[in-house]
Amino acid sequence: MRTGLCDTLGIDYPIVGFTPSEHAAAAISRAGGLGVLGCVRFNDAAELETVLDWMDHNTDGKPYGVDIVMPAKVPTEGIPDDLNSLVPPEHRAFVERTLSELGVPPLAEDVETGVGVLGWLHSVARSHVEVALRHPIRLIANALGSPPTDVLTTAHEHGVLVAALAGKAEHARRHVDSGVDIVVAQGYEAGGHTGEIASMVLIPEIVAALGGRAPVLAAGGIGSGRQAAAALALGAQGVWTGSCWLTTREYAETMGESAMQRALLGASSSDTVRSRIYTGKPARLLKTRWTEAWEQPGAPEPLPMPLQNLLVSPAHQRMHAADDPSAVAMPVGQIVGSLTEIRPVADVLDEFVRGYADTVRGLAETS
Amino acid sequence: MRTGLCDTLGIDYPIVGFTPSEHAAAAISRAGGLGVLGCVRFNDAAELETVLDWMDHNTDGKPYGVDIVMPAKVPTEGIPDDLNSLVPPEHRAFVERTLSELGVPPLAEDVETGVGVLGWLHSVARSHVEVALRHPIRLIANALGSPPTDVLTTAHEHGVLVAALAGKAEHARRHVDSGVDIVVAQGYEAGGHTGEIASMVLIPEIVAALGGRAPVLAAGGIGSGRQAAAALALGAQGVWTGSCWLTTREYAETMGESAMQRALLGASSSDTVRSRIYTGKPARLLKTRWTEAWEQPGAPEPLPMPLQNLLVSPAHQRMHAADDPSAVAMPVGQIVGSLTEIRPVADVLDEFVRGYADTVRGLAETS
Repeated sequence: MRTGLCDTLGIDYPIVGFTPSEHAAAAISRAGGLGVLGCVRFNDAAELETVLDWMDHNTDGKPYGVDIVMPAKVPTEGIPDDLNSLVPPEHRAFVERTLSELGVPPLAEDVETGVGVLGWLHSVARSHVEVALRHPIRLIANALGSPPTDVLTTAHEHGVLVAALAGKAEHARRHVDSGVDIVVAQGYEAGGHTGEIASMVLIPEIVAALGGRAPVLAAGGIGSGRQAAAALALGAQGVWTGSCWLTTREYAETMGESAMQRALLGASSSDTVRSRIYTGKPARLLKTRWTEAWEQPGAPEPLPMPLQNLLVSPAHQRMHAADDPSAVAMPVGQIVGSLTEIRPVADVLDEFVRGYADTVRGLAETS
Repeated sequence: MRTGLCDTLGIDYPIVGFTPSEHAAAAISRAGGLGVLGCVRFNDAAELETVLDWMDHNTDGKPYGVDIVMPAKVPTEGIPDDLNSLVPPEHRAFVERTLSELGVPPLAEDVETGVGVLGWLHSVARSHVEVALRHPIRLIANALGSPPTDVLTTAHEHGVLVAALAGKAEHARRHVDSGVDIVVAQGYEAGGHTGEIASMVLIPEIVAALGGRAPVLAAGGIGSGRQAAAALALGAQGVWTGSCWLTTREYAETMGESAMQRALLGASSSDTVRSRIYTGKPARLLKTRWTEAWEQPGAPEPLPMPLQNLLVSPAHQRMHAADDPSAVAMPVGQIVGSLTEIRPVADVLDEFVRGYADTVRGLAETS
């Protein structure tokens, strides 16, 4: 499994693995893919600094990348207290009532309540870029499209490539016009922020729209060698994967054993929902009693980004502590149905590579 | 492009083309695929008889199939007048008001108003099966899952294979348990009746669930050789296609030049919507001012099958006559964005075959 992108990124296999777990990201890079560390959870730049130091010592000199969440246009900004004052009291009351109905207790008194996930704020995402560029990263991926021009310029000055997610061909063209190096074509079936067009249609459409101006990574519905072969058949030069690393041993090493992992192992491909309740923009999540509560008559409309995540972050913290698989909040794609056991990262990657080779061999016999 | 299914069906390429046009279906079979004639539009069994006679004389002795719409459980039945009395007057008023707002005039006085499309009725679908089995058909496909047991038995007695659509792995298993020979895995991106799971996830899931008990045709998002290669990479033995035949010259030969074809040529992959307004069950349609009207506040909930289609059929007839591409009612998949010109069936099929070979050759170089 080898394409031009392997040389561009200095990796063995064109498998890019996005994960908020540094243990999983490092293991993906060590196994020959490109681990991309999701930074949105780091409210404090110093914390990211420490984790990237750890990455530098645990990737055997292999390349890795980071993923930030940065809109091209600077949105409403402010300190968390200001923003929190913009959250309507009815929304807070709904969250409180829902948690109580779901049997999710308040946090123990000695647990510090977080201020929410601030990585969605422009200033925080910018601090992530600054920290990351002090490390030997190979790629900055932006989960919200083209990053601002000066971020692109600075990244390129550091020899760092920039990738951006696209759910439509017109977005992909715009990214490349702005100077983005790699487009991630994110299909409907993907976890997290996602559009309406499914991978089977979106990937070749974006490949055709770019006409070779930039390589395309296929995202959405890809968790096996078969699916990677399908993605490359559709014209992608590699795959962008996320959900399949959530049930790895290394993920648990960073995040701890969790009700979330147990919930993923028990879910089928029908157990996801595309909803604005996680960030304010449509994102695919695991379907749980929490997501269902937001679909009941009388539930409020989700708030715009970044307010919605500020609203629900403390609820996520409470659900995490409550440890009940039926009430968790977790972005995941439709491949969740194929996640049936906790595995080491190297096994998942090995299955990609072997499954890919088997599939390509099988296709050769049909031709 | 050759799999075991080619031998099973007696065809050159494992490309099954569903279309309500006998000209397109016959051309697909002549070009080496399997043309499958959609029967739902034939209210009168004698009319289907005539068309199948024509097929017999225009397929050069190549195999072809038919597609019927038959629920396994016999639904509420009755003569059209009875059923029409079940349509609430508010629904009729909404349709009338909407057509007027869209500028769709009433039919000319000398045009006979149809009774609606009756192929959705069990008794009519059964008459389709009886007629079809008097012809040398190779396949009966049922668009609504497993057909009733006696239909399966009779088909098998005639040496005819039976295919059924599935949008979930559990449906696919149930079909094969009932005796269905071929499963059509219909992904979210498909036109017409469709579920929530996209092809990239659904196809390998159904292939794995069946464990080789029956071959799988991949449906949803497939209109090119690249996409066919992706489908086979995902484990399918062939592809089930529909949308790509709507913009063929042969389709126009049967149905006439139409605003519908012009509308499809102008649409992007974002211009579809999954809605219950066509049949009462979720189906992907071209997004037009007609579908948008049903999403406005105050629009009624669509009726259950078969009432919804009885309600909207006269509206479809009026819109067809009005010849305005912005107000048509047409099932189509997300590949509509790649349909940019009217082409002969043979060209479309040729592109499938050549594109497939190119793609497989390209993949071999990555391995």
